[in-house]
Amino acid sequence: MSIRVTVWNECRHEKEDEIVGLVYPETIGGAIADGLKDHGFRPTVRTLDDEEQGLSASLLANTDVLIWWGHRYHDEVDDEKVDLVQERVIGGMGLIALHSAHHARVFKRLMGTSCNFAWRESDDGERERLWTIQPGHPIAESVPPYVELPKSEMYGEPFDIPAPDELVFVSWYEGGDVMRSGCVFHRGRGRVFYFAPGHETFPIYRDVHVRRILANAVRYVNQPHAGGWRYDHWARPIPLEQGAPKQTLFKKPRAAARRRSGRNSRTS
Amino acid sequence: MSIRVTVWNECRHEKEDEIVGLVYPETIGGAIADGLKDHGFRPTVRTLDDEEQGLSASLLANTDVLIWWGHRYHDEVDDEKVDLVQERVIGGMGLIALHSAHHARVFKRLMGTSCNFAWRESDDGERERLWTIQPGHPIAESVPPYVELPKSEMYGEPFDIPAPDELVFVSWYEGGDVMRSGCVFHRGRGRVFYFAPGHETFPIYRDVHVRRILANAVRYVNQPHAGGWRYDHWARPIPLEQGAPKQTLFKKPRAAARRRSGRNSRTS
Amino acid sequence: MSIRVTVWNECRHEKEDEIVGLVYPETIGGAIADGLKDHGFRPTVRTLDDEEQGLSASLLANTDVLIWWGHRYHDEVDDEKVDLVQERVIGGMGLIALHSAHHARVFKRLMGTSCNFAWRESDDGERERLWTIQPGHPIAESVPPYVELPKSEMYGEPFDIPAPDELVFVSWYEGGDVMRSGCVFHRGRGRVFYFAPGHETFPIYRDVHVRRILANAVRYVNQPHAGGWRYDHWARPIPLEQGAPKQTLFKKPRAAARRRSGRNSRTS
Amino acid sequence: MSIRVTVWNECRHEKEDEIVGLVYPETIGGAIADGLKDHGFRPTVRTLDDEEQGLSASLLANTDVLIWWGHRYHDEVDDEKVDLVQERVIGGMGLIALHSAHHARVFKRLMGTSCNFAWRESDDGERERLWTIQPGHPIAESVPPYVELPKSEMYGEPFDIPAPDELVFVSWYEGGDVMRSGCVFHRGRGRVFYFAPGHETFPIYRDVHVRRILANAVRYVNQPHAGGWRYDHWARPIPLEQGAPKQTLFKKPRAAARRRSGRNSRTS
Repeated sequence: MSIRVTVWNECRHEKEDEIVGLVYPETIGGAIADGLKDHGFRPTVRTLDDEEQGLSASLLANTDVLIWWGHRYHDEVDDEKVDLVQERVIGGMGLIALHSAHHARVFKRLMGTSCNFAWRESDDGERERLWTIQPGHPIAESVPPYVELPKSEMYGEPFDIPAPDELVFVSWYEGGDVMRSGCVFHRGRGRVFYFAPGHETFPIYRDVHVRRILANAVRYVNQPHAGGWRYDHWARPIPLEQGAPKQTLFKKPRAAARRRSGRNSRTS
Repeated sequence: MSIRVTVWNECRHEKEDEIVGLVYPETIGGAIADGLKDHGFRPTVRTLDDEEQGLSASLLANTDVLIWWGHRYHDEVDDEKVDLVQERVIGGMGLIALHSAHHARVFKRLMGTSCNFAWRESDDGERERLWTIQPGHPIAESVPPYVELPKSEMYGEPFDIPAPDELVFVSWYEGGDVMRSGCVFHRGRGRVFYFAPGHETFPIYRDVHVRRILANAVRYVNQPHAGGWRYDHWARPIPLEQGAPKQTLFKKPRAAARRRSGRNSRTS
Repeated sequence: MSIRVTVWNECRHEKEDEIVGLVYPETIGGAIADGLKDHGFRPTVRTLDDEEQGLSASLLANTDVLIWWGHRYHDEVDDEKVDLVQERVIGGMGLIALHSAHHARVFKRLMGTSCNFAWRESDDGERERLWTIQPGHPIAESVPPYVELPKSEMYGEPFDIPAPDELVFVSWYEGGDVMRSGCVFHRGRGRVFYFAPGHETFPIYRDVHVRRILANAVRYVNQPHAGGWRYDHWARPIPLEQGAPKQTLFKKPRAAARRRSGRNSRTS
Repeated sequence: MSIRVTVWNECRHEKEDEIVGLVYPETIGGAIADGLKDHGFRPTVRTLDDEEQGLSASLLANTDVLIWWGHRYHDEVDDEKVDLVQERVIGGMGLIALHSAHHARVFKRLMGTSCNFAWRESDDGERERLWTIQPGHPIAESVPPYVELPKSEMYGEPFDIPAPDELVFVSWYEGGDVMRSGCVFHRGRGRVFYFAPGHETFPIYRDVHVRRILANAVRYVNQPHAGGWRYDHWARPIPLEQGAPKQTLFKKPRAAARRRSGRNSRTS
């Protein structure tokens, strides 16, 4: 089955800021989608101003990999949507958080940290060189030892994230900074990839290598399989060992607790 | 300087449930505090029903290590308190989450996952054997190869947490289950220790080994040093390299963003 | 392209020990190979007593995934073969180390630790219950929450390995012990999977779940791609930044060093 | 008790190469030792040309932290010495591997990989900026956000090491490269710190920040405690659970195996 990809983006800068409109007439989400089409995907594009903020339960239920680009309007995303995306990731949906999505509520929710870092938006950008730290990683397939981005916004250390489960790329900046710019995190059954490049005023999402990285990332964060079970608040009153003590009574608060966090119901 | 420890606990079961009152006449928080006193600490004890839910900004500002025991009333803890504890952990405060605090909002916030697991509360408890996986770890100092808890509640895998940065203990249960029962996580500048044993109806917090583990954990999660900087949304408009592009203009939304996530202001 | 699997095993117990011969008339390596055939692989089987110890350079050069079962005769494996296997793993060959291969020289070489653990070989075996810690992991595909092995040898903690990059299974034993029994390690471009079950006197390699786990593991440790470069002692005398200092002279000892560790030459 | 530090270095360049002799008249090992004296340590200095290559069993038995600087003569270090250092690290001795010690046999033995990386020795050095990734880490105490080294040798990615257990520093280079330049690894009971800066022709070991980093690292890799047990090939014939199967007979080969890898005997 082909991977069902949804590209979500604020899509406000394109309207508000002439420069962005000129750089991305197809919108940022459109440019990301075009790159994925080059690699055979048929992404769905949604924006903050779409119905249900472009994040309906049915769309998310039918999304294998969600790509997220947000910047200025993180706070407008409803709690309910943040909860829903988190649940889906824990349940196995892949998430790719791009550039300023480091401060997206869904990303911060999954990290548990401030996700702060240092930054410098020089007027015409500065050179970024993206180094491949793990050449054998699936996300690095057909990616050269390093990728040069002639004009980029500096996003630099210290980056307040939990230690990544897999560190794939580290960036060098002309101005003298470094960044863990390609990081994989595992949350529940889901895989999350944070990728730093992608400022709205530079055509980074048209770069052939960046497009390949994103296509590789989509394949990588797509859930390997949906079998087994979800992570459950799972009552096992009957012990597996004969003669071991059983649980005979269930207390109401338990039931309440079960309802409370029972989102991840066991799959058969 | 001695470590300032605050023991927070719901302290409701002790009043609501006769058995708990008999097992812990000094309250659960009191028993934890007594154990720490055995090791030379002078903990402060607070409960959910204290003023400001026992979590005032001034208390947290003067707490080096916060110990958290909660179970049925996680949802009563105010958003503002959850935010505050998270900020303090990112800023360097140590946190020890005990037993059913796996579903405490502060713990789930820091993990980013459901923190669900399997469980069995057999009427008289079942035997748990806590294995020390990393004998050289500071939290394992003077802890024997394994600790037997004759009556415990089963908390078992699968446990929906991010991979721990350090796995110190793994538990065996009489009923046939296993658990990653002693896990260290790093979040921002803070260290978090989750420790599974500690059901309200068994006197586990009087066990000499458990008391030593908690005392070791307090020393370990205490911030190693407060120097350097906090993790900051940190503007660095002037590049470090001569001739590299500068940033000359700050956009308002940036300022807003800075305020929004600017909690962690640079120190020194 | 189908994955080229080589199953290497000592194949001495089968001849020396009547019980083992009765349990595994097809030999242990043969049983492992049969399990892989059930899943569509066409493994090659080699033994310690084959020509070149069953580890010729040409065979290894044409092996994508090497499965290793050894026990009593680890010390007979030649240095040259240990070097060769290590080089191939660093170059991208997958390795699956089974049961007592924890003390195989190739495994210890890749871990850098003693790989010691606790053990108990009860006369008729004891029950082992293998818990799936990461239900969404590719190696756990179609594997139930736990697998019961009625007769197994206890291999228990503390297990002296570096912290696994991925912990997939943890075992419970009837006798009261636990074990990190399914661990993934990344070394160079290669993936290594250690799987604890598989004592020579019990028909564990005929278990349908164990066979599935090994088939999943073969797919998982198989190199995702061979592109990019190998990890190289890589001279880059010309800086990437204009005006940055160049290296003009190469010192002999450098060249020697290059030869010395230059095994991993860059691929185009 | 104060930490017993041994600084081991080849100490050949100083005699062979006039420039090195001028930069480090006190020898490289001497400069490292002087830095530690600034921080209150009383290090012992040993060299490759000392009796027993400066690595006698008695010295190592009385060393809490071993600092290693080697470059051209890695291959001269005897197998027996490599074995001994590895055993001591597994047993709890701290190890700090400096600069070109990435190819020291003891370091490669503990990593299990080639430890290759890219390098450029520009004639007069190039600027390196060492970024502190984990400001709260004990090794970063009193270390500024970044340390500038005006003249350094480029050691760059890809660096063939297992994923570090803790990544403390990442370096930026004038020539356009990056490096994970400060990495902590846990091996057995021992902690290992690799620190990249320190070329023989630049006075880096006189830098006040580098000296502080090394002093912090000595404190950090020093074994937290020596209690509990060593990682042992540990027979537990008697199960911990009543009625569980016992082991009644020990097979000779087992005994042999025990001797073979029985170096780490249990401590009381």
